[in-house]
Amino acid sequence: MDIKTYMTGLGKQARSAARLMSVMTTHQKNTALYAIANAIEQQKTSILTANQTDLAAGSQQGLDAALLDRLALNEERVAGMVEGVRQVAALADPIGTVSDLSYRPSGIQVGKMRVPLGVIGIIYESRPNVTADAAALCLKSGNAAILRGGSEAIHSNQAIAQCIKAGLLAAELPAHAVQVIEMTDRAAVGELVQMKSYVDVIVPRGGKGLIERVSEQARVPVIKHLHGVCHVYIDDNADFDKAIAIAVNAKTQRYGTCNTMETLLVSQAIAPQVLPALAKIYQQKGVELRVCEAAQTILQQNMNAATEEDWHAEYLAPILSIRVVQDITQAIEHIHQYGSAHTDAIVTEDYSHARRFLAEVDSSSVMINASTRFADGFEYGLGAEIGISTDKFHVRGPVGLEGLTSQKFVVFGDGQIRE
Amino acid sequence: MDIKTYMTGLGKQARSAARLMSVMTTHQKNTALYAIANAIEQQKTSILTANQTDLAAGSQQGLDAALLDRLALNEERVAGMVEGVRQVAALADPIGTVSDLSYRPSGIQVGKMRVPLGVIGIIYESRPNVTADAAALCLKSGNAAILRGGSEAIHSNQAIAQCIKAGLLAAELPAHAVQVIEMTDRAAVGELVQMKSYVDVIVPRGGKGLIERVSEQARVPVIKHLHGVCHVYIDDNADFDKAIAIAVNAKTQRYGTCNTMETLLVSQAIAPQVLPALAKIYQQKGVELRVCEAAQTILQQNMNAATEEDWHAEYLAPILSIRVVQDITQAIEHIHQYGSAHTDAIVTEDYSHARRFLAEVDSSSVMINASTRFADGFEYGLGAEIGISTDKFHVRGPVGLEGLTSQKFVVFGDGQIRE
Repeated sequence: MDIKTYMTGLGKQARSAARLMSVMTTHQKNTALYAIANAIEQQKTSILTANQTDLAAGSQQGLDAALLDRLALNEERVAGMVEGVRQVAALADPIGTVSDLSYRPSGIQVGKMRVPLGVIGIIYESRPNVTADAAALCLKSGNAAILRGGSEAIHSNQAIAQCIKAGLLAAELPAHAVQVIEMTDRAAVGELVQMKSYVDVIVPRGGKGLIERVSEQARVPVIKHLHGVCHVYIDDNADFDKAIAIAVNAKTQRYGTCNTMETLLVSQAIAPQVLPALAKIYQQKGVELRVCEAAQTILQQNMNAATEEDWHAEYLAPILSIRVVQDITQAIEHIHQYGSAHTDAIVTEDYSHARRFLAEVDSSSVMINASTRFADGFEYGLGAEIGISTDKFHVRGPVGLEGLTSQKFVVFGDGQIRE
Repeated sequence: MDIKTYMTGLGKQARSAARLMSVMTTHQKNTALYAIANAIEQQKTSILTANQTDLAAGSQQGLDAALLDRLALNEERVAGMVEGVRQVAALADPIGTVSDLSYRPSGIQVGKMRVPLGVIGIIYESRPNVTADAAALCLKSGNAAILRGGSEAIHSNQAIAQCIKAGLLAAELPAHAVQVIEMTDRAAVGELVQMKSYVDVIVPRGGKGLIERVSEQARVPVIKHLHGVCHVYIDDNADFDKAIAIAVNAKTQRYGTCNTMETLLVSQAIAPQVLPALAKIYQQKGVELRVCEAAQTILQQNMNAATEEDWHAEYLAPILSIRVVQDITQAIEHIHQYGSAHTDAIVTEDYSHARRFLAEVDSSSVMINASTRFADGFEYGLGAEIGISTDKFHVRGPVGLEGLTSQKFVVFGDGQIRE
């Protein structure tokens, strides 16, 4: 079968499954999720065996160590996958929620009811646990899913797909509610992102390269998460202890995450107080500092000078660029110019500055006196997240179940007609 | 100047105006709106003169009467335009609204703040009043706008654009917050819908042809309003008076609107009671009926038989197709198969049927015991509307100010860090 025919078949099956999924009860969906979790638990050995096949092939093909690590499953990771699916089952069902119900002068009562988007296409790279995560989130939000994992994880993903199928069957949910693409050909992705009649949104999960490639080709809306160049700005009136705690935590709590601070901005009024203390802690933790001239002068050390590229950089590593700015205006200007509209924080005790930062910084998360590391679905109370959107259209910031839904208007009347 | 250079210039100016617009106060935006309304009022004569130029050119080019009517302005229509802009000024400002603010176990307080989308591109056909309407809605929601009207209305639109410019100037808002494309070349539209760096969303306002053309070319998200094939379903347990009132109003209150009923579905259990009464009223009002075989039998008249195309038709005219269905299941199936997911209503006194219709009909507005004619922004309390979305992504149904906005996460802390 050629790829176009194969993909169209998947699309049609997904579309009819989506219609059935949209009216499944919370109980039915949760039953399926628990059945999937149980199936993964029971089929642990076959999943690990399939994963060994992928790992062996990957090693032979010379995949790098980081990629092989992301690809690898073990007892703990499988247990994490099972736990993740059970957590999604425990989340509140967003579908059918009615909000803003109110009477209008005509006598009709108007509100908005949350409904599924329809068919979600998920494109991801090596980590096989995304198969279970993404399937769970799509099912719980009443959608059908078409999943396309990395070709290097094909055996692992197919083994997990078997468990999902078993769970759907056990709970009498449509068998095509979750379909995992079996063709490893890259052209399948090209088809998936162009099938406007069968796919309602694409969520790519992976590096910037994948997301740019998908967005370029897509004719279906894409929930994009490009990258995180996050800032902490220490304002003139910052509390010393809060400034130190937040600036250290935002950079060093984890280096490889998108909500990690990559550039520290410090107001010149407070820089002489906070910078030496911070530099000491960063150096103790092995963080390389790349600094502007003013910071260099304050620190009186021979440090790497930050270049233009450093202000744009998402290091995802123990490297931090530091800039001393004149004031909040210059800080906001810097964030606007170099940031990626992901997450930016101010540390301040100044009421008006806090209000201004909140209003003027146009990022998916804007924080006052808190670490940028809080920007994720769990910390925000969304439950699991399917990604973080750096777009503005449809959804922004961490995307939970609600991001996979839409709202229709519902009108309750007693025979009202329009005059 | 070539079109690409010209459009890129407009895009860049819009992008920087958008950043300034996003932090304008409600007072500043309202001042500009009232100044625009006043300018239109004062420049009434020059607007009408410009419109005469367009009308004369249109007649010479042989534009049809309906198009010339849409193009024509008179004292009353200009007054309506002025009133429309003042109404938008009177609407609540959505920008900066914070919702769902709540504490998390970590101690941070998380909420969502409403922010503008950025730059809105509006593409419309002959009616020049859209220039004022669309500009007002974009300004009030803190966005910058690039407007592209029909080439046949170019003089009228430019005259209105002058008034908008004057209003922006008077209120010290960015001069490029609203730009009206001066080039009538069609290639300008092609550029506009592809400038991903400068335009955040396109709203086409016009016929299905325009919207399909724009969607086909667009690389920027489009808020689409394709067409309205709306249904009223009279259920077995419908109240006779409500059924008659709603079915008559939904079809005959206005024929040319997208929320007008195009197909009436009647349960076979109640058809013998309601159909003869309804047919009589429709015939008195000059509505042509195209009916299924069962309806033919009940009505005992020689009527036009509905064909497959009739079930798909958006007549926008005094024509109605009527089908007798077995029950609610077949009614929902019909709506799913032939409807356009715009607005569909059930007339029933049956609690479970009402709940089922509400949950299973996947349209932008789903109504119980109310006329489909209520589906618009004014009736729903959104104030003015920029269009009706038949999509699910980002916004669905009547699109008011809120549809031109997004939400960012805001986090308030007291020095919290992630453990």
